[in-house]
Order: sequence, then C-alpha cells, then structure tokens
Amino acid sequence: MEQTTVKIGIVGGTGYTGVELLRILANHNQAQVVAITSRSESGVKVADMYPNLRGIYDLAFSEPTVEVLQACDVVFFATPHGVAMSMAHELTAAGVKVIDLAADFRINDLAVWSKWYGLEHTCEDLMPQVAYGLPEVFREQVKQANIIANPGCYPTSILLALKPLIDHDLIDVSDIVADGKSGVSGAGRGANVAMLGAEMSESFKAYGVAGHRHLPEMQDKLMQMAEQNIGLTFVPHLVPMIRGMESSVYANLKTDMGQDQLQTLFEECYADETFVDVMPAGSLPETRMVKGSNMCRMAVYRPPGSNKVVVTSVIDNLVKGAAGQAVQNMNILFGLPENSGLNQVALLP
Amino acid sequence: MEQTTVKIGIVGGTGYTGVELLRILANHNQAQVVAITSRSESGVKVADMYPNLRGIYDLAFSEPTVEVLQACDVVFFATPHGVAMSMAHELTAAGVKVIDLAADFRINDLAVWSKWYGLEHTCEDLMPQVAYGLPEVFREQVKQANIIANPGCYPTSILLALKPLIDHDLIDVSDIVADGKSGVSGAGRGANVAMLGAEMSESFKAYGVAGHRHLPEMQDKLMQMAEQNIGLTFVPHLVPMIRGMESSVYANLKTDMGQDQLQTLFEECYADETFVDVMPAGSLPETRMVKGSNMCRMAVYRPPGSNKVVVTSVIDNLVKGAAGQAVQNMNILFGLPENSGLNQVALLP
Amino acid sequence: MEQTTVKIGIVGGTGYTGVELLRILANHNQAQVVAITSRSESGVKVADMYPNLRGIYDLAFSEPTVEVLQACDVVFFATPHGVAMSMAHELTAAGVKVIDLAADFRINDLAVWSKWYGLEHTCEDLMPQVAYGLPEVFREQVKQANIIANPGCYPTSILLALKPLIDHDLIDVSDIVADGKSGVSGAGRGANVAMLGAEMSESFKAYGVAGHRHLPEMQDKLMQMAEQNIGLTFVPHLVPMIRGMESSVYANLKTDMGQDQLQTLFEECYADETFVDVMPAGSLPETRMVKGSNMCRMAVYRPPGSNKVVVTSVIDNLVKGAAGQAVQNMNILFGLPENSGLNQVALLP
Amino acid sequence: MEQTTVKIGIVGGTGYTGVELLRILANHNQAQVVAITSRSESGVKVADMYPNLRGIYDLAFSEPTVEVLQACDVVFFATPHGVAMSMAHELTAAGVKVIDLAADFRINDLAVWSKWYGLEHTCEDLMPQVAYGLPEVFREQVKQANIIANPGCYPTSILLALKPLIDHDLIDVSDIVADGKSGVSGAGRGANVAMLGAEMSESFKAYGVAGHRHLPEMQDKLMQMAEQNIGLTFVPHLVPMIRGMESSVYANLKTDMGQDQLQTLFEECYADETFVDVMPAGSLPETRMVKGSNMCRMAVYRPPGSNKVVVTSVIDNLVKGAAGQAVQNMNILFGLPENSGLNQVALLP
Repeated sequence: MEQTTVKIGIVGGTGYTGVELLRILANHNQAQVVAITSRSESGVKVADMYPNLRGIYDLAFSEPTVEVLQACDVVFFATPHGVAMSMAHELTAAGVKVIDLAADFRINDLAVWSKWYGLEHTCEDLMPQVAYGLPEVFREQVKQANIIANPGCYPTSILLALKPLIDHDLIDVSDIVADGKSGVSGAGRGANVAMLGAEMSESFKAYGVAGHRHLPEMQDKLMQMAEQNIGLTFVPHLVPMIRGMESSVYANLKTDMGQDQLQTLFEECYADETFVDVMPAGSLPETRMVKGSNMCRMAVYRPPGSNKVVVTSVIDNLVKGAAGQAVQNMNILFGLPENSGLNQVALLP
Repeated sequence: MEQTTVKIGIVGGTGYTGVELLRILANHNQAQVVAITSRSESGVKVADMYPNLRGIYDLAFSEPTVEVLQACDVVFFATPHGVAMSMAHELTAAGVKVIDLAADFRINDLAVWSKWYGLEHTCEDLMPQVAYGLPEVFREQVKQANIIANPGCYPTSILLALKPLIDHDLIDVSDIVADGKSGVSGAGRGANVAMLGAEMSESFKAYGVAGHRHLPEMQDKLMQMAEQNIGLTFVPHLVPMIRGMESSVYANLKTDMGQDQLQTLFEECYADETFVDVMPAGSLPETRMVKGSNMCRMAVYRPPGSNKVVVTSVIDNLVKGAAGQAVQNMNILFGLPENSGLNQVALLP
Repeated sequence: MEQTTVKIGIVGGTGYTGVELLRILANHNQAQVVAITSRSESGVKVADMYPNLRGIYDLAFSEPTVEVLQACDVVFFATPHGVAMSMAHELTAAGVKVIDLAADFRINDLAVWSKWYGLEHTCEDLMPQVAYGLPEVFREQVKQANIIANPGCYPTSILLALKPLIDHDLIDVSDIVADGKSGVSGAGRGANVAMLGAEMSESFKAYGVAGHRHLPEMQDKLMQMAEQNIGLTFVPHLVPMIRGMESSVYANLKTDMGQDQLQTLFEECYADETFVDVMPAGSLPETRMVKGSNMCRMAVYRPPGSNKVVVTSVIDNLVKGAAGQAVQNMNILFGLPENSGLNQVALLP
Repeated sequence: MEQTTVKIGIVGGTGYTGVELLRILANHNQAQVVAITSRSESGVKVADMYPNLRGIYDLAFSEPTVEVLQACDVVFFATPHGVAMSMAHELTAAGVKVIDLAADFRINDLAVWSKWYGLEHTCEDLMPQVAYGLPEVFREQVKQANIIANPGCYPTSILLALKPLIDHDLIDVSDIVADGKSGVSGAGRGANVAMLGAEMSESFKAYGVAGHRHLPEMQDKLMQMAEQNIGLTFVPHLVPMIRGMESSVYANLKTDMGQDQLQTLFEECYADETFVDVMPAGSLPETRMVKGSNMCRMAVYRPPGSNKVVVTSVIDNLVKGAAGQAVQNMNILFGLPENSGLNQVALLP
C-alpha cells in the first residue's frame, strides 16, 4: 500500500515552536519537511542551532521564498504575528494549506484583532476559509478549512476545561475566572532580561496586568461556543519551569450538580478524544504528566458548601499548546490518522 | 542603656520553620535562644543538621522538658499540630508566652477545628488568652495575648490581600476565589516521594482537592473581619521552587471603583505597616522580591469590562508565612521594635 | 513480511528505570511487555502510579513468579542489586535472556564485587555467559551473551569518553581523573530527605566521599580495555536537575597530539556508532542535547600549555545510562535493528 | 563612642554585583552608600530596578562624575573590565580607595593581562599600590593598598582550596586539575539567549573551551603563592541554579599523607579565619550551605589507592566570590571589624 507523504514548509523555524515541530515531525511517517526558512539564519543548519537534531535533520535554514513554499502541501508559520497574513493569499491561491501558530487568524472580529495586535488585518477576504484549530471543539470546520488558526496555549487549556460545562449549559458564563500558569518556554527564545535563568528561577509571579492577548481570543471563542455574551477574568502567571501549563478555571453552577455527575459528564464529553484525558475523581493533573506529549489532562472538582465548579487542566504549552496541536490539525486536513507523529509518551520523571 | 534580652525556647526545631527561626534570631540583638528541643535528635548539634548555622550556634537539640521551657520568656512551637496544645497550660501558668507556628489555636470555633484536625481540643479554657498573630489585622489583640496562633502561610497572604477591601465593605464577601501557589518548602522536611526533586521539579499542579486546612482558618478569620458569613473558594497549587508563595484573589466589587481609587485605598490601608508593601499601579509582585525577608508585597488590579477586583500578594512562606511573622509577634509581645531581627533584605537574584 | 515480537518481562518496575523502560518500549514495534512485577504494588495499574502512561498501558503490576517470567523471551531487572542474581539460574536455564540494570554482573572480579556490595555472589558459574552491555566497546560479547550486565550511568559516560584514547594507547592510564555530575533521578524514587526538592534544588555538591560503587566497575572495565593496571580518581557530584549526566575526564597524553588530530581520531572511532556523537571542535555538549534520548554526545579538548587532554561527555542517565542502553542491548541480543524503539529526539527546550 | 562611617560610591550598580553590594551594605552599621552610578539608568531609583530594595534605599542611579566619587572614602567598581582603570588615577590621587570587582588589577603581568583582556593597560604606575583582595592569602598587602583587585569567583574558591597544600609544599604544583561549577548569576544580567531560563534550566555543561579569563589570574597567583612555575588545567561548568559555586581540585601528593593529617593541616591553616570553614572529615560542602553568606566551606579528601588529594570548596559566587569579599576588603582597608555587614546566615532551605 502506498502512503501519502505530506510535503511541509516551516516559516520562521528558529524559535521554540519551530524546533518542536521538527522534533515531532521526525517521528511522523507520512510527513517530510522540505523547507525551513529564516531570514536571519539562512544557510545555517538547523542541527547547528538545535543540537538535539544532530543526526536527524541535515536541512539548513533558507530564505523564505514563495516559490519554495508554493511547492509544499502545507506551510506552518512559527513566526511572530503578521507574517502568515502577509503570505496567506499567495499560498492558498496555489492550493497550499496554511497553519498559523501565531495569532493572525484567531479572532473573527477583525476590529478586536486590530485593537489588540496593533495592525491592519489584510486577509478579511480569507476569513471564510479559516478554522480555529482546536479539534476537540471545531473538528468539522478544521476538515474543510484552508487556513488553520492554531490556538494559543492558554486558550487551548481553558477552552477544553470549559467545553463540557458550556455544551450542557451548566454555568453562568457571565462570571468565569481563569487563573493560568505557564512555563517560561512560552515566552520564546528572544533575549529578554526577565526570562534569564537568574531572574525567573525560584520565583513565581502574575504578569500581563495590562491585558493578555489570549483574553480576546478566548472571549471570541467562548461566545461562539456559548452562543451568548460571556464574562471572563483571566490572569496569567509565570512558573519557574521550562514546559507546561496549568489552568484553574472557576465558575458558578446554575443548577446544583454533584461531583459524580460532573465526573461522568466530563468523561462522556471526551470519551472519543485521543488527546484529552479526564483524570479519575479525586486526582489532579500535574504538568509533568504531559511533558513532551500532545495530551491535555484535566480534572473537575466540586468544592463543598458553594455553587462553584473548578476545572484544572494541564498541557505542554509547546505541544498541545502549539506544535503538537498544529500537527494534529495537519493530520485532520490531510485525512491522516489524527495521532500520526503524536505518540510521544510524556517524559516522567 | 540596658537592653532586655528575651530568653527563647524552641520546641521541635528540626523542621524548616525551626531552622528559619534560628536564622532570623541569629541577627536579633535582644533575643537569645536558650533551648531547642527534639526528641529524635536529642544531643545532635543544630549546626550538624543545618550546616548553614556552623559557627553561629553551638547549641544542641535537647529533650523537651517543662523545667527548661518554663525558664524561658517565650516558647515557639515549630511542631506538628497537637504539641503546643499539650504544653500550653503548664507554660502559660508559669508566665511563659507561647507562640504556636502550628494550627492548635488558629480557629476559634473548636468544633470546626476538631473536624479538620481530627483531635479533641484540650485548651478551650485558654482560648480567651489567644490572639491570631496577623499583626496588620489583629495587633491590639496580639499585644495582650499570652498565646499567639501564628497564621498559616496561605491565610497570611490571602487575608492581607483582602483586608483593604473588607475594611471598606467594597466586595461581595459571599463569592471570593483565592488561587494560591506555594513553593515546596511549605511541605516540610519529611521524606515524601511526591516532594522529591525528581518529582516536583519542572512540574506544576493543584493539590488539596479534598480540602486544605487553611480554608477553615481563612473562613474563620474572614467572618471575624467582615462581621458576616462569607463564601471562599480556595485552591492551592505547588510551584517548583523552594520558597515563596503567591496568591491571586478574585472578588466582585459591590460598587464600581477605578484602578486609581483602589490603589490609593490600598496604599492608605498599609501606609504605617513595615512589612506590607503596596506596589505601584501597573506593577506586579514576584516571590523573589521577598525571598528570605519578612515582607508581603501586593498589587491591586481592576480588569476592564467587569466588576472584578484582583489582588496578587507574595510572601516568603517560611518568613512572613511562618518564622518571621512569629518573631514579629514576639517583638510585639515584649514591646520591642516590631522589626527587630527582621531587617533581612530579600535575596535577589 | 512477518516480524518477530520479543516478549518482555520487567521485574521491579516501580522505579524510574522501570517507567523509562515502559516509555521507550511503547514506541518499539517489535516488543511487547507481557509482565511487569512488583511485590509492593501488585495489582496496581502502572498507569495509576505513572500517569504519563495513562491510555498507553493497561498492564498492572503482578507478583514476580518464575512461571510468568519463564514465558518471556527476555527479562529486565530494574531492581536493587541482588535480585537478578537470585533468579538468573532459573531464567537462563529456561532459555530466557536476562538484562540486569542493577550491578549483579558488572564486575568480573567477584571478590571485589562482594567487597563493594556486601553480598556473597551466587552466580559464579554464570559469569561466562555474561557480557558487559556497553555495545560501543563490547558489542561482539553482547551478541553471544545470555546475561547482560547493563552498565552504570557514570561508567557509560566515562568509558565512552576514554575509549578512543585507550584504543590508541595515547594516555598514561595510571593517572586519570573523572569528575562526574548527575541529575537527581539517578538517586531513584525512594523517599530520602536529601533528595527532597527543598534540599537539592538550587544547590550543587560532591558526594560519595566514602567511595562510589561505579569506581570498581570502571576500574574493572578500564583494565580490560587497556590490558594493564589503571589509576582512576573519580568524584561524583549532584546537579539540581532531574535528568542528565556530564563527565569531564582528564588524562595526560604520552606523546603530543594537537586538537585536530584528536578530533579526527574521536570522529573515526565513533563514525559507525548510532548513539555516540562527537561534537565539532570548539563546541561542548550540554545535557539538554540528549534529554530523553539514547545519545551520548562528547567533545575532546586539548588545553594549550600542558600535556592534558580533556573529554566531556553527556548522556541522559535514565536512557543511555540505563533503560535506553538496556533496550539497545535487547535489540542486539535478538538481532533487531540496534535503534528500534530508540529514535526519540531529545526534548529541547 | 563615636563610630566611623565610610562614605561609599558604587560605579555601575545595575548588575548583580551592584545590587548585592547594596543588599550587604544595608546591614553594615558603619557604611553609607552616597552615590551609585549608571549611565544608562541615570535618574532611575535603584528600588525600581531591584524591588527587593523597596523601602530600604531611596537612592537613584546618577551619572558617574569625578566630583561625586572623589567625595567618597571608597569607590567600588561593579563594572565591566576597563572602567576602574580609566578612573583609578583621579580617585587614588584624591585619596579615595578603589575596590575593583572586575579584572583590571588582578594580574601582575600586564602583558598577560593585555593578551587576555584585549586592552592596553593604562595603570602600570599604580600597580605597586594594588593588592589582590583575597584576605586569607594576602591580608597584609590588602591593609596597605590603595587599590584592591577583588578576585574572580573561581579563583577565590580554588586558591582557598589549594592554600594549605601549597603553604606546606605538599603537592606537585606542575599538575593541578580544577573542575569548577558555577550558578548562572555569574554570567551577569545581560540579555543573553544561552542564559534564558528555557535554555539553562535542567541542563549542565562545560563551557569556556577557548580558555577562561580566570585561568591566567589563578596561574599568576598560584605562582606567587608557590614561588615556582605551576601547571593548572581548569574547566568551568554551568550549573542550573542561580547562586553558588563549587570547585573540585585534584593534585598529586609529593609525600604520602593520610586523611587525618590532611584534615588537621587544613583546620589549622584556617583556624583564625572567620570566612573559611573546614568541614569535618567525611562530610562534603554543598553550595546551599553558603547561599547569601560570605563563607567558603571546604573539605579535603584522600582517595585510597593513589597519591591524589581532592579538595572541594563552595562559595556563593556573588558574596565571597564578589560583593561580600569586596566588603570584607573594605573593612580591612578602614580598620573595621572584618565581619561588619557580613553576618548573613546562609538561606537554607
């Protein structure tokens, strides 16, 4: 039996999501990375920048040219926002699928997008071809899209935590609190004093007091999921570790439900999902349980003496929160098994 | 001018709060540790167990006897719960002040206490002599007490965050969410697989799903502060770092107030406090800003588009959250300057 | 084409090398774990103890019985020393291959073994069937053995660093210094105060002052490799990280050789090895370049102004230093491709 | 009794040694920081850059002018190399003592200095006024100097480890190996990708393959101490922690000496030193035993079966390895108790 091989281009592969795509795709048996581009590192071998890839990739970074990318089946953008938008017309016109790991296509309301990202949006005409690549919520749209807006890491962990509650209309969506915590790889590989080991180790802090860009993204998707206005308070925090993200989500139940009912409801909601694991009642997920893997593990908890429900969910911010989910979306787009290349077992300890 | 020297006994000095008391008291010029007890380590020099104290203390652990402790002016209990309770009658009868770093005297409602701690309370008669040792809230009671219930670490960080809002009756106290995060030293020095470096490093998790004992402690004190019933949802989390605690507290404002008004209100509330620092608007505290020091630093934040107020506060769980606050209480009890021995500057980086 | 499937038993699977074997074997397409034993955890599902395995293994720990293990093709011992020795006769008699990740068969001189391990050796008769499972040095012996003594982590990193120098008789083998550094997972999963996160984080130390058991193991193998007496000074150190091992090895060149000659010699020595990577001149390996992978990366360095040669090598102590190398040995024993199941790319960042 | 107050200027106070000087001097009762300069941060309050100093210093960074600095008793240079050299003439001419925490005056052989630092040395005439500020070796010179070359961190830990052996002419000084390990704060506060938390956490590596500048510094001082040529191989390593430095030093004994003799010799050598602690035989120092303190703790070890002696020593690279030793030198220069301001107990855990 002959197998399809998807030809892949990666734009902007020098950051952490770029190297993570390469790590994951190295064990994908129906994918071939044919080009990885970087203006600043053109000519440098990827294995010289990322020695974990020595012996695995002989590829060098190249200039991002339309010709090279148009010869691919799919192009991943592991770039700052604005870049995917600038090349999306040419690529989709050539029949190339686009998976943007940045934010260019994440928010349907382009006025909101422009306000938070400080740019004019240049692809309004392409928005009908876009799907928000959270397969557990929007799989059918993903199948038919030409452009995938790969979700932010916080939205991935928080929307998955809320989906069972919203699907069943169980909570007051006007008052949701999401307290998110991320490892430092989420801040990227840029030289930044605040992210030095001597600054972030052995310390914990909230950040983003002026507003985090994942807030409007979540508001946009929650409104779509709930089909009504929602109220979300979101505070992100920085954890002294490399990888991992935990979100604790608090909401008020509209009608009383016990722990057992909630547990069953969550388990049923995700029974058919490969990459969402509802932990047994009484246990709580830890980020190390998903380190290096594409899993989202979660637990639902019903504190006694109130009408609150608490959901805690964990992902690896670079995998299910970025590169792994991008590959999952690629698999869906090309009709491959959804878990191809995504069988990594979390590294524990 | 002659100076008082307070003679100090420490019961159960082998844990982290014990060594932290010794570290702090080493630079207190009106305090002398005359006895430090441990059944299991009797005869061992404290500096052999804690080599950071080599050359500073020549003291050895001794058996905890009433005679030795009755010769002290004050006895700190750095023990599991239940121990202070068992010696409090004899010590207070001899005029010795008791500062309990465990939980024996933290909850006024002794039925609630017994439920959470699984013990009969044997000191009901002494409760009128007890003050909850959070000086910024209960300083006058501390001054006149014979027994200090030194607060838990989470309650310290969360009650201080809420005090300005409750004092001015600004929030709906029936629906408060406190998302707490602690370094691993809070779990103590017991051999425990889950606290091994290979288990807790590079991971983040919620814990205490079955209910954390600091919840009833906070409920008890918040009701006292608010003079009404309160509703508190509290989820503690474990951070891969040794020291430090951050709490993010979420509440709904009853009447609208802007960022500036809240900022002013918080600054005024703590203007006279040595150990509470309200950070400037727009900044956020980090736990490293208080590492090794007795400070609590906090920020108040008013997210746009809702009626929420968010307060984030940080302490060193072993200092303001334990041993430092205990020394602060001792200073108040004996009429010493409240900051004696507590001038450590946080270790940064 | 039909493929062999190797039936595998794992004795003592509750420790870190046990879970690491399971992680690696999960992606080995010619291996099936049919039994994993633990006296203390019998009946517990492995995924309940190691939640990274949820959804991957449905297996439960079972009592270690000879019947079950004799039905396997190979049995891995991820146990304390002494256990493999107690079952080796029965298993090898039944034609089952034994791979011992502990130390029972690592030292040919059984008097030395007994001195360091404090036990009588009960398998002297089996020693002719044993190979020391460092394939890059002893591959031919491994192919024909029935029992594999899987090397210690320090010996793996240090012997590989020295092999090119010894093969070419370049150094004075009577005066070698090996300064080793290990992450804390090397200490295992036992509850041990010194390995608590609050104790080992943010600290670095030498240990093993009374002598580390990997010293006689290395002496034994170095003598075999050099065919003469050797002198080795070995000091192990503990690094505040979970995984990873670095060794810096210092020796005196007998005849002068430049950096370029040494570089070429090292590259040639390992040109055909899948799991040893000689880094380019001027670069130095970092443990993160092998995290989760079976690679050993090394660099050779010739400091000016002396006759010293320095080799630094890195491995993941749980993979090439334990479970990965054990699977590599299994592959050799059963004629499978040596890298089957061992294509994990190091997790970076 | 009236007390002297030393008026202090700090040039280049924005780095880690700058903030560490401020932390230490905050508890020095005979010192007053009157100026702290920074071109780039002029006008910024030090507490805004280093929030651990909030409430302790009201001082702002100022432009470095000769007038301001000439009004000081002593000026610390916490700058890159080359800066102290450029101001030393003016300051010493005005009777101001200079303590350079950088390398300008560390190497007596100025040709060697120029080769390693790539600059012309402009203060040859001042070299007779310079002392190398390692008080335990060169205290008498320090007392009479006008300029202190504050030692590098590696040299501090390694020279102190070797002093007893060299003083008694016990080792072959032509073949010394020093394997050094440093926390990341040693790399300073500059934005540097390699020092990002996501890069250096959970990893260990050797570095400085092209030669570390502390090597010629140590060679220079060891020759002075040994009064003969010496041979030193030095490989520095980076440890994933903020503070702390450990050095393991290996040498060959010229005549056999047992563990006990060596232990006695080390203890006697440092019996009168406040800041050097020889640990008991059989114990080993850990960097956490000196975190935040000015202590150097060490152990001497005699491996059986060879003529090697091993010394392991630990310091806090920012305290005894930089700012603390600088204050110790200041105390000596001004006739103050050598431990003034240096009574911090190491922060453990």
